[in-house]
Formats: sequence, structure tokens, C-alpha cells
Amino acid sequence: MRLLFIGDIVGRAGRAIVQSKLPGLVERYNLDFVIINGENAAAGFGITEAIVQDLLDAGGDVITTGNHAWDQRDALVYCERQPAFLRPVNYPSGVPGKGANMYSARNGANVLVMNAMGRVYMDALDCPFAAVDKELDACPMGEFVDAIVLDFHAEATSEKQAMGHFLDGRVSLVVGTHTHVPTSDYRLLPGGTAYMSDAGMTGDYDSVLGMDKEEPVQRFLRKVHGGRFTPALGEPTLCGVAVDTDDRTGLAVDVEPLRIGGHLSRHIPSFWENGGN
Amino acid sequence: MRLLFIGDIVGRAGRAIVQSKLPGLVERYNLDFVIINGENAAAGFGITEAIVQDLLDAGGDVITTGNHAWDQRDALVYCERQPAFLRPVNYPSGVPGKGANMYSARNGANVLVMNAMGRVYMDALDCPFAAVDKELDACPMGEFVDAIVLDFHAEATSEKQAMGHFLDGRVSLVVGTHTHVPTSDYRLLPGGTAYMSDAGMTGDYDSVLGMDKEEPVQRFLRKVHGGRFTPALGEPTLCGVAVDTDDRTGLAVDVEPLRIGGHLSRHIPSFWENGGN
Amino acid sequence: MRLLFIGDIVGRAGRAIVQSKLPGLVERYNLDFVIINGENAAAGFGITEAIVQDLLDAGGDVITTGNHAWDQRDALVYCERQPAFLRPVNYPSGVPGKGANMYSARNGANVLVMNAMGRVYMDALDCPFAAVDKELDACPMGEFVDAIVLDFHAEATSEKQAMGHFLDGRVSLVVGTHTHVPTSDYRLLPGGTAYMSDAGMTGDYDSVLGMDKEEPVQRFLRKVHGGRFTPALGEPTLCGVAVDTDDRTGLAVDVEPLRIGGHLSRHIPSFWENGGN
Amino acid sequence: MRLLFIGDIVGRAGRAIVQSKLPGLVERYNLDFVIINGENAAAGFGITEAIVQDLLDAGGDVITTGNHAWDQRDALVYCERQPAFLRPVNYPSGVPGKGANMYSARNGANVLVMNAMGRVYMDALDCPFAAVDKELDACPMGEFVDAIVLDFHAEATSEKQAMGHFLDGRVSLVVGTHTHVPTSDYRLLPGGTAYMSDAGMTGDYDSVLGMDKEEPVQRFLRKVHGGRFTPALGEPTLCGVAVDTDDRTGLAVDVEPLRIGGHLSRHIPSFWENGGN
Ligand SMILES: [Fe+2]
Ligand SMILES: [Fe+2]
Ligand SMILES: [Fe+2]
Ligand SMILES: [Fe+2]
Ligand SMILES: [Fe+2]
Ligand SMILES: [Fe+2]
Ligand SMILES: [Fe+2]
Ligand SMILES: [Fe+2]
Repeated sequence: MRLLFIGDIVGRAGRAIVQSKLPGLVERYNLDFVIINGENAAAGFGITEAIVQDLLDAGGDVITTGNHAWDQRDALVYCERQPAFLRPVNYPSGVPGKGANMYSARNGANVLVMNAMGRVYMDALDCPFAAVDKELDACPMGEFVDAIVLDFHAEATSEKQAMGHFLDGRVSLVVGTHTHVPTSDYRLLPGGTAYMSDAGMTGDYDSVLGMDKEEPVQRFLRKVHGGRFTPALGEPTLCGVAVDTDDRTGLAVDVEPLRIGGHLSRHIPSFWENGGN
Repeated sequence: MRLLFIGDIVGRAGRAIVQSKLPGLVERYNLDFVIINGENAAAGFGITEAIVQDLLDAGGDVITTGNHAWDQRDALVYCERQPAFLRPVNYPSGVPGKGANMYSARNGANVLVMNAMGRVYMDALDCPFAAVDKELDACPMGEFVDAIVLDFHAEATSEKQAMGHFLDGRVSLVVGTHTHVPTSDYRLLPGGTAYMSDAGMTGDYDSVLGMDKEEPVQRFLRKVHGGRFTPALGEPTLCGVAVDTDDRTGLAVDVEPLRIGGHLSRHIPSFWENGGN
Repeated sequence: MRLLFIGDIVGRAGRAIVQSKLPGLVERYNLDFVIINGENAAAGFGITEAIVQDLLDAGGDVITTGNHAWDQRDALVYCERQPAFLRPVNYPSGVPGKGANMYSARNGANVLVMNAMGRVYMDALDCPFAAVDKELDACPMGEFVDAIVLDFHAEATSEKQAMGHFLDGRVSLVVGTHTHVPTSDYRLLPGGTAYMSDAGMTGDYDSVLGMDKEEPVQRFLRKVHGGRFTPALGEPTLCGVAVDTDDRTGLAVDVEPLRIGGHLSRHIPSFWENGGN
Repeated sequence: MRLLFIGDIVGRAGRAIVQSKLPGLVERYNLDFVIINGENAAAGFGITEAIVQDLLDAGGDVITTGNHAWDQRDALVYCERQPAFLRPVNYPSGVPGKGANMYSARNGANVLVMNAMGRVYMDALDCPFAAVDKELDACPMGEFVDAIVLDFHAEATSEKQAMGHFLDGRVSLVVGTHTHVPTSDYRLLPGGTAYMSDAGMTGDYDSVLGMDKEEPVQRFLRKVHGGRFTPALGEPTLCGVAVDTDDRTGLAVDVEPLRIGGHLSRHIPSFWENGGN
């Protein structure tokens, strides 16, 4: 089956390119399942219930998040009634919402999506390795699950790579988010899991992390706030990673990044263009 | 002129691919100047004076470093007699060695190379923005300086992007190191400076940051040391970024990554292949 | 001369005990000079210009701050017209306000007060050691300066102790702030400088750092915000440290904590009670 | 019953004062149970099995640790055969040793001792709040347990105070360690639990954290290692906290610090001197 993961949507520019491009991509390339990290969709800080719906309407099947999951306070409420919304699975027990869930793809396949948060240079949630391990024990790939994707929202490349190796052979894709910069280390790990350290953000790259660049630059220089962070509104780039999986094993067959629009070099997965699927 | 920057060499595997491939690259593509980050060249921890010489013999012109600069203790001594060795410029005054220096390229041009270290999630050195600003005040591009490169050794993408914008139009290239993962956000900033958040490491990517993966993975799981970190010795990848500059302005004309060998997708800069230069 | 330093005022409870007790202390014990850290005076976050004036009216001579210096945004403006307000001296050049200044004590003596911020586990300002060294070079003790006090606003005890040793013999008092807990390691260092790692906060100790305890406790348990932090309003404790200096050398002769009111054990400096001065 | 907790022993100076003073204290003041944090006993880094025995021979009943628990590598082995050795309870499952255990006091009472590590500015172990909660569920005070003590090894005063409130009424004493500086905020919390943010270290205070001060000071100034850290060997101070508990409820009746020897002000708990017990 054919999966697409889209990295952190930042503000209006990021939402706009998803809404304008995703429907065409789904149709043209027969995408079976689309996961979108939406933690910065609402002006850079969290995501509203209405924006979740907008992204689902544009073709998304699941919305993952990260450290900004609760920036919009009512997410603590709507997360309970919106099954497409995931927050990191390694929050302590008792926190609202889910961090892993099973979904039906357009091709009828069952996809387990997990969202976890790293702990290096981030808030100390529960152990992400133990948390995903527990989910996989409950729903291993190959029985009722046709594909498994982990959005590992983390800062440190060491923790991301360790997670890739930890899950190698047990999931379809481990993709990192949070740094807002796409990496070019996409590859199939020895056990058959697709891996990429970061999907990059979806928004305006003539910025600092998708936010207007003036304020962040002056904060580094002066260490004093000069104003608020606001999303940059220039030409956006849609960044993500595409994976084709083996329908029998759930493991990855091909993995390549997707980058369209804006300031970065364009890349359409070659296995999308070369027919197949 | 034509510049190549090669990211953090990790251990023997990283050194081997530089020694086997760099001489041919210099000759075939007429590289005028080669900068190598060597902070992990000695079994992952720092660099010895002998390895500095080996990398220079292979075609390097400057060796930059980062938080591992002093892991080999005699670097504090040899840094004073080896002008090709740079440590971050933002160490406090009085620390041995240099963090910025002028070099002669093969084409006779003068190249200013600066090495600075970020402070987000890293040790609190002096302000890297103020430090490079001071160097550029002393040696602005265009008078006696034909090209300027900053190796910004930093963890956070926010700090790296802010540095890119801060220097945009004043230097040829701002390239990040330290995360050991190549990014695909290479681009020309609006003012004409080439930028890439991280060059990636040069070593075996079937690893955690170039080190054998068993020990780092178990440390994340158990939080207890099981042994030492040792470099991974599988097939290495050489990772870097190539820039062609305008001989008159020193600004960048083209920028693309270089990735050859090993587990990552191969990429030779298109402007190297398409003749030119 | 006789100095009193009062630790971080937290909210209304902290202000109230200073306003009710300080005037009597100044008179009864002939205090020559009073320094107050006020960074949490305005509902826990920064300090307004009006509160600065209230604390001066109660007997304070200088108001120092720390990482909360700019929480009340107009501090960036009023700091320029209110010489009794200090922010950390190691902000980058160009930031409004001052971090060190000379003041006249009630006995006519000249007192240099410095405020610096640590960098371990805190924002990376400029080096606090270099910053205070520069101030002391300009105004060494003994010529026109009769006493020198540093409020070192820092998290790590290692950095505080290192600062104490670094300044030993050159200043009258190095006192830490920021942890909001008074330490009992007050002593005269070998060179004659009085030292205490933290003065403690002035506010309600039946709390977390002076703030109502419910919200902080639940954040540690759930890692999700349940509401805002608000100052605890129970019976406050005034916490500080008292130093008597030698009028000729400026070095310390006696040092002891002051703790009155509220939930902590009461302590009046014995050399205040035993006459002298 | 009468409990004494002694803070982090640093090196030979710290061991010496415990060995010379503790036997007399136990006898003179009828101490029923003595807990010693020994994480820095072996030249500042961890503790050997022989030193554990030495401290038990001197009158200790339990040895707690912290982030330095495993600095002496064979602790991973001997922790399994030495029931008096505790490492933080919130290590992931599968790590050798115990973090909580029941002990018999000299008066025949059962004492539950727990050791946990904070996560603010420290390594991300499992949640310390959840971990101690689980232990208390299994062994609540009042049935078979006559007293309960938690050594909470943590950096941030916020986390320590939150833990105090979280356990208030459920344990006899929550005492912090790790900052190596004794605090003077000892008190009975509203529910009857004794609390002190840090016991302080036991060693030479004319130092940085008990280590010779030259190297740490120069590292702050130059950011480059000049040599190793070695324990300071000047006159040591024994630092701790004493608690008398109600034999019926297990809650605290009195709490005061103990400080004897060396550079800090002397303090013997007044309820020790005033007879009682
Ligand atoms: Fe994030
Ligand atoms: Fe994000
Ligand atoms: Fe590095
Ligand atoms: Fe490196
Ligand atoms: Fe503070
Ligand atoms: Fe404060
Ligand atoms: Fe310790
Ligand atoms: Fe510790």
C-alpha cells in the first residue's frame, strides 16, 4: 500500500498548500493513507478542532502532534471525540486523548499510527521506547495490522536513530518531526523499516522554523523579547515522506521524500512517477 | 570559485572514504577549496594531529571542529602550530587556537573560514552571533576576501536558521554540523548566501550518529551504561555540501549536497556534472 | 557598615511582609543599605515601576532581578529612568537598563551593586564571570567603593560556588538567588568575602516556589497545564542575608541569614542582636 | 522513633567525618535509624562495595545514591547482593538493584526507605512521582511500616517541593539531595511530613560541590578542561537532617538539620539536646 506522511503544518501558509495540493496528490498517485503532523497549524501553536477537520477534508486520515499538542486549550476536550487526533502516546496515564490508534485506509487495509515524543532536550514524558513497545505488543504487524507508522516527535538525532533501530522490522515507517527541517537520510533499515530523521515542516522556509524571521533573530542577538512569534506567510513548501509497503509483510519497499513548492528543491518520489502501485 | 564542505568525519570508516574519494573529487570537479569537520575523526572523539595531517593530505584545506574539539587533549597544544585546525571562535579569550582564519585556495583566492558553536542545548560559550559579526567586521567579503564560509556547529535548527539570516548577504555559505544527519533544505537565501542546516556526518549510517548502534540503543532503554561508544565500521557515506561562488561578489551561485557511498541516496551536485566552472 | 539583602519577593504576600517589617528592621538595627531581589514581585512575574517604588519606599535602596526581569514588558522602558532597578549585567550590549551601579548608603558610603545571571540550566547570556570581572576592574573595592555586593541569580550550586571563589577577596558579598529556597551555607570565604548560595524567596513557603501548589504539583504528575500559576497568599516569610563589613577594607566581618515570619524557623542575625555596629 | 539522614558523602574527607562522628552520635542521641547518601563517596564518583560496608560499620543502615549510582561500574553487580544499597527507584524495569526497601531499625521498627531521582535538568528516568506512589500503594504507612523516608535526588527546588506536597501525610520525611548545599527550609508540612529541600553534602565546603575548587572555577572561565575533578581534602562538615516520628502514625514530630565540623555554622537539633525520645 501507499502511504504519505506530511511534516508539521505551520500556520496559514502551511495549511494553504496542503489544501491546494493534497487532493490532487491523493488522486494522481493513488495514495492509500495520509498522516499529517498538525501541531503548529493554528498560527504556529497547536491546532483547533476546525483545522483538524479542514486537514481531514483535504485528504488527511490522521493528525499527529507533539510538544504543541495542547497549545489550543480545547484540544484537551475535543481530543476525546475526534479519533483522528493523536497526541504523544507517552503522556502519563490519565491524560485525555490517545497516542496510538487503528485506522482504515482507502484500500481497506488497517493502519496503526503511533505518535511519541522524545525526551532528549524535551519535557520528560514517560519512556517513548517502552510506550511504543507496549503498543506493538498489543497490535503486532501482520495479524490484523497491515502497516504501522510512528511519528517520533523529537529533537535529538541520536534518539530518533535509536528509535529507528529499536523498531526495525516491526513497523513500516519511523519518521521524525519537530526540527522543522527535512533530512535526506531516508532509507530502508536492515530489517525492512523505512526511516527518515525528520519530515521537515510544511510552511514558508524563508523563516525561522516557519515563523517570521525578524523576532527569532533579534532574540538570539539580544536575549530579550521584542514581540510575538507569528507565522511567515511567504511561498510555502509541502514536506513529507512517501512509503510503499509490502501488502503481505507490512514492511517498506520504497521510501523517498516529497518536497513541492516554495524555497526548497522539488522532489517527487521516483516510485510514484514510475508507475507501479 | 568552487567550494566543498564535508561534514563530521566519524572514526576510521569516515576517514577511509575521505582518503579514498576526496583526491578524485578534487581533480575531476576542479574543487578550489575543501573544508572538513573532523571533530569525531579519532574513534568518535576529537582529532589527533596525525589525523589532521592525513585529512589535509587527502585534499582538505581546513579542519573545523565543535564540542569535541578538545577530546584529544593534545589538541590544546598542537592547535597553536597547525593553522589548518580551527576550534569554535566563540570560546572565551585566552583559550588556545583560532576559530577563524584566512586561507589560500588552489585558484589563488582568499577564503575566510569561521567555526562557531551554538548555545541552544549546548555548552554556554560566548555569543556566536556577536563572535562571527566581529570577524566579519575585521574581514568583510569583497576587499581582500573572495569567499567566506561558516561551519556553525549547533543542535537547534532555530539557531542555525537564525544564523543563516543574520549572515545572509555577508558570507558565501552558512553550513550546520553536529546533528550528524544531512538535511535537504539547501538553498540560496534572499541575500545570496548559500545555506544548509546540516551537512551530515561522514561515516557509517547504519549506526547511531556514526557509532555502533547497540550501546546507544540500550542506553535509551535502560539509562545505564553497558559499555563504551565505538565507531561503526560498516560501509561509509561521504556527506557534504558544494557551493559555487561568484568570483566578484563572493556570494553563492549554486548550492547542492554531496552524498556518495553507503546507505544514503547518492547525490552529485548537478552543477558539477553539467560542466561549468 | 551594615548591609541587608532580601531574596526574591513573590507576589502580594512577599510585598506585604517587606512593607510591614522592613522599616522597623532598618530603624531598630541601623541598616545602612538594603538590596531587594524583586523579579517575582508582580504576581510572580517581573515587577512594575509602581512596585519598585513601593519597595524603595519601604526601605530598599536597590531592586535586583533575574530571568523574570522583563516579564512586565514596560520594564524595558522604565529601567532607563529608574536607577534603582538592575537587570543582569551579562545581557548583550544594547539591551536597556543597567546590571551594575553605584549607590549612596545611609551612612554616606558608596556601594557598588551588581546583578548577574548564571548560565547552567538557564538562558545563555554573556559570561557572568567575565562581566563582573570587567565591572570590578572599573570600580575595585577600596578606592571610591566602600562595599560591593553581587546578586548572582543562578540555578546550579556549582556555578554559584565557583563565582564565590572567583570573587573572594574582591567583594563584600556574593549571594545567590533564583532557587527560592534559603541555604544554610553562609560563611566567610578565605579571602574575606561573605557567601551564601541562596537567600531564599520572600513569600508564602506553603507553596511551590511561592506559587499556589496545586497547579505545579499536577503539572509534574500529568505534564499538561491545568491553569495558570498564581502566587500563594498564606503567611509569608521574609528571607535574606545580613552582612557587616569592615569600613576600611570593604570585606565582610559577619554574615548570617535573616528569616522572619511564616513557616520557616526564625533567625535574626546574632551580631544584630549583640549590639555592635 | 529517631531518624538521621546524612547528605552526599564526598570523597575521603566526607567518609572520615562520618566514621569519626557517627558512632558517637548514634550512641549519645539514641539514633534508631541512619540513612546515608553515598553517591560521591568514592573520590567523588559513585561508591565501592567496600565503602558501602565502611559506612554501614560506622552506623549507617541504608546507603542511597543518585545520578552517580553507577560511576563505580561494579555497583551494577554488587547492588544485587547488598540490600543496604539503593539506587533511584525510577530506573526502567530490568535495571539491577532496588530503589525502595524495608529495613529493621535498632528499636525494632520497620522503616521503608525510597530513593528517587528528579527529571528537571537531569536524565529522563521514569516518573518519580508515579514510582514512589506505587511503592506507597504497596506499603502504606501505619500497617507494617512504622516510618517512611524518601531521598529525592533532584536539582530543581520546584520538583522537590512538589514531591513534598505530593507525599505530605503519607511519609515521615522527604529530603532532597544532589545540590550539595544544605537548605534551611526544614519544616513540618501541613499533613505531618517533615521536609527539607536539600540535606547538603558531607565533605569539605571550601570547594565546589566538595571537589577541589581550582579546576571547576577555571572550567567556568575557559570552558576547557584543565584536568580532573578531585575531592577537596580540607576540614569536612557532616550535613544532614534529623527527624523524630510519632510511633503510632509514623508522621514527623520534629525536624531540624545537623551540621557539625568544618566551615559551616554548627547546628545540633534542639530536640536531641533537650532530652525527649
Ligand atoms: Fe515540536
Ligand atoms: Fe512542530
Ligand atoms: Fe558535535
Ligand atoms: Fe560531530
Ligand atoms: Fe529566577
Ligand atoms: Fe525568582
Ligand atoms: Fe551528590
Ligand atoms: Fe547527584
